[in-house]
Amino acid sequence: MLSQTDLHAEMSKQDYKLLCHPLKERLSALQHTVKEQKLPVVALFEGWSAAGKGSLLSDVILTLDPRGFHVYSTVSATPEEVRKPLFWRYWTKMPARGQIALFDRSWYQELYIAQVEQGISDRERERRTESIRTMERQLTDEGAVIVKFFLHISQKEQRQRFEALADSKNTSRRVTDRDWKRNKQYDLYYQAADGMLRDTDSHRAPWHVIPSHDKRYALYQIYSILVSSIEEALRKKEQRQKALPQLERLSQEPIAPRPFPLVPTPKLREVSLEPRLSKEDYQDALEKAQKKLYKLHNRLYREKIPVIVAYEGWDAAGKGGNIKRVAAALDPRGYEVVPIAAPTQTELAHHYLWRFWNNLPKTGHIAIFDRTWYGRVMVERIEGFCSQESWQRAFQEIIEFERELYDWGAVIVKFWLHIDKDEQLRRFNDRMNTPEKRWKITDEDWRNREKWDQYEQAVDEMLARTSTSFAPWHIIQSQDKKFARIQTLNLLIKAIEEKLDA
Amino acid sequence: MLSQTDLHAEMSKQDYKLLCHPLKERLSALQHTVKEQKLPVVALFEGWSAAGKGSLLSDVILTLDPRGFHVYSTVSATPEEVRKPLFWRYWTKMPARGQIALFDRSWYQELYIAQVEQGISDRERERRTESIRTMERQLTDEGAVIVKFFLHISQKEQRQRFEALADSKNTSRRVTDRDWKRNKQYDLYYQAADGMLRDTDSHRAPWHVIPSHDKRYALYQIYSILVSSIEEALRKKEQRQKALPQLERLSQEPIAPRPFPLVPTPKLREVSLEPRLSKEDYQDALEKAQKKLYKLHNRLYREKIPVIVAYEGWDAAGKGGNIKRVAAALDPRGYEVVPIAAPTQTELAHHYLWRFWNNLPKTGHIAIFDRTWYGRVMVERIEGFCSQESWQRAFQEIIEFERELYDWGAVIVKFWLHIDKDEQLRRFNDRMNTPEKRWKITDEDWRNREKWDQYEQAVDEMLARTSTSFAPWHIIQSQDKKFARIQTLNLLIKAIEEKLDA
Repeated sequence: MLSQTDLHAEMSKQDYKLLCHPLKERLSALQHTVKEQKLPVVALFEGWSAAGKGSLLSDVILTLDPRGFHVYSTVSATPEEVRKPLFWRYWTKMPARGQIALFDRSWYQELYIAQVEQGISDRERERRTESIRTMERQLTDEGAVIVKFFLHISQKEQRQRFEALADSKNTSRRVTDRDWKRNKQYDLYYQAADGMLRDTDSHRAPWHVIPSHDKRYALYQIYSILVSSIEEALRKKEQRQKALPQLERLSQEPIAPRPFPLVPTPKLREVSLEPRLSKEDYQDALEKAQKKLYKLHNRLYREKIPVIVAYEGWDAAGKGGNIKRVAAALDPRGYEVVPIAAPTQTELAHHYLWRFWNNLPKTGHIAIFDRTWYGRVMVERIEGFCSQESWQRAFQEIIEFERELYDWGAVIVKFWLHIDKDEQLRRFNDRMNTPEKRWKITDEDWRNREKWDQYEQAVDEMLARTSTSFAPWHIIQSQDKKFARIQTLNLLIKAIEEKLDA
Repeated sequence: MLSQTDLHAEMSKQDYKLLCHPLKERLSALQHTVKEQKLPVVALFEGWSAAGKGSLLSDVILTLDPRGFHVYSTVSATPEEVRKPLFWRYWTKMPARGQIALFDRSWYQELYIAQVEQGISDRERERRTESIRTMERQLTDEGAVIVKFFLHISQKEQRQRFEALADSKNTSRRVTDRDWKRNKQYDLYYQAADGMLRDTDSHRAPWHVIPSHDKRYALYQIYSILVSSIEEALRKKEQRQKALPQLERLSQEPIAPRPFPLVPTPKLREVSLEPRLSKEDYQDALEKAQKKLYKLHNRLYREKIPVIVAYEGWDAAGKGGNIKRVAAALDPRGYEVVPIAAPTQTELAHHYLWRFWNNLPKTGHIAIFDRTWYGRVMVERIEGFCSQESWQRAFQEIIEFERELYDWGAVIVKFWLHIDKDEQLRRFNDRMNTPEKRWKITDEDWRNREKWDQYEQAVDEMLARTSTSFAPWHIIQSQDKKFARIQTLNLLIKAIEEKLDA
């Protein structure tokens, strides 16, 4: 894509005034529509050092209302970021609906710059390319606009700009040895960038190579593209509310999502609820398992392996007590229970996976999710909080999310705590009749209970469609809470041991 | 305080069961009241290494509902934290109303541990002590409960615990050279801790020294104190709604807040709105000032000096355009405009200064606040969003906040953009009559306009009561926007130059 760019394109001051000022006004007005229509907008600026990212970006943001955008300058990863998945620091910065996020460098530096400077393997490059495609697909599927600029200048122009910067007292510190080296290795970066542009260009998140020798011309291009991309997205949004969503999506989707092999799981009705554990056997097994887990937690910490434990299950199935038995074995400095309740305003304004990205553990830590991202295909599906198209799509998105965590090195264990309908009623009544427990039961629990059959169907589908070798579901019979606690502890221990032995 | 502790206090297993279990149940139930009554609760655990902070904390959190608490393990500051004010990382972690924050080590490590290990000067120690007192006063004045535990063990006990840890394969890595050194220097820490406990013990945030040789006894103490502290706070909250708030506050306040000398400011009516600037003079002056500011920004960056620019002013006084002229001179990677609108749910659930703490710049960066913390003594005062007692108190709190920033090394400049009532009407009408500007004007603007006199009185009081030598107010006559822009640019330049020359 780079070779097709006319680097000598220019624009006169007069033309710039004539053509660019109305675009700026249009962009400024569009920002209000973006807010009203709750469109999340991402614009990223990649390109050569000294291509003018800072100064072009500076012009753009002066056109915008500060209440509606945020600039992220991507520098080297902080120690916290190093202990999270590679794309964590980008995911967590994605804009809320109606907001604009501007990235000065972006996730693409993990691809073409890393390729040259860190010599990542071909396989890793492909993996990252796939991750980026997935991320951009997930975001645009939920309505985000992603505009990608690559600011292009020639090797000679870059050298001259470095020289000019180095000659001035005020700016000389901005030219580093790394910059000179980058200029010398221009060809290497060129090749890497060109491949990256080819591999990650798509209808849904297209690349725009901007010839940047002439600032006015570059700005004119950037404003035109920003305005037309946002206008197109707004038009599409309107159309989508009228036309068939499926048709439109197919025409937009050149790259099929990656298929993942599934692991068979039984249907809930097929699971035996018989097993029981005596109090003595339970106490012995509990003590043994907790000691083992405590030791493993130390090893996880040393080997910097993150663990993600996902709890789902019927209301009153005993998630809280079960989690407590796991947590009691752990050093509080190395684990966190993440309770998932109804999303906050801020969470609702983001992609549904955003809040889970925000709550991932650090390497070496354990995150225990009390309810999870599976809400998308259960409560959100059944209560109609998202469209059918959205929750249907979620099965794939969730596996992709878990795969990303697995590739990062995480142990992922998912539990469905299972009881039957009669047992739930007994526990609900017990809660109603015990003053200290009454806070645990709400009207919503009773309402959910009435939808037991709908939930059962949704859960069966969820188990069947999202159990993978790297993030398997375990149905835990929790009719006997003691039995369930030992089972989850042992399954968690087994999963950790397998990882440590691998 | 340490010498009065009976380190040999013990509790039998039987007594523990008898006495502690009901306390745990009580605490568990209280957590729901805390949530209902929207009480923010802070409990911090300081004390000797190996005193059992982790294990005691672990017991406490297993008693709590994970939806209502958060544990913060304070380790060494991250690079981001190093570039913020010393207490930034604690302020930003303060719990929302109804939430419990548990600190494993806390802001107190910046005092007694820093005293021994970093050899901070007496003056710096006093400054930090004062900052901590101020922070705790500000938080408790807004209703927070602060419970401070110091877990106490003897030098011998500490050594024996280190030896036991070092002997076991699983835990040996946890005993570091620093720990052994700390044990050898026990006396130094003892003295430092004892002084700190004395200096920062107060009715509103009392210290509790917990003899921690016996875990059961320590736990029993911790549960008793947590339960009684929360119960007392709930009682007080109820009383406060009945009795005279002033009386109660006086009896609680052993240490008077530090007085700050004020700088005289004119009343708004006394400010001349005559000065004007021709278009040519403006263009020349603007270009000159922006070039100068750009160069200064480079120097600020190199010398790691943070700058905080606070914009307040009448609606339609021209804040946006003024800010744009400042921003246009800056590298977008080194500044941020922070627009302050109505607080979000999350912000509302915290201390009103919390969101400003969260939006501070890094060292070397510039934060431009479009509206500020002064909302407390303007809109919140006039619209009755906080009690009279709260906004009266805010004058002092705001100066303390700004003093903290000044002590950190920040340049602080505050602008009040002033126009008269007729000019505002002209601009409102202009906005109404120009389609591209209509979004800028809302019903609220008209409602605020009706309260012009009330606002004027509040602003005059604010200017008179919060202008200090380290964070002075500048009344900018903005009847002529061009004049105002040059004035703010030059005042900002002057403040930065003074700092750089100092």
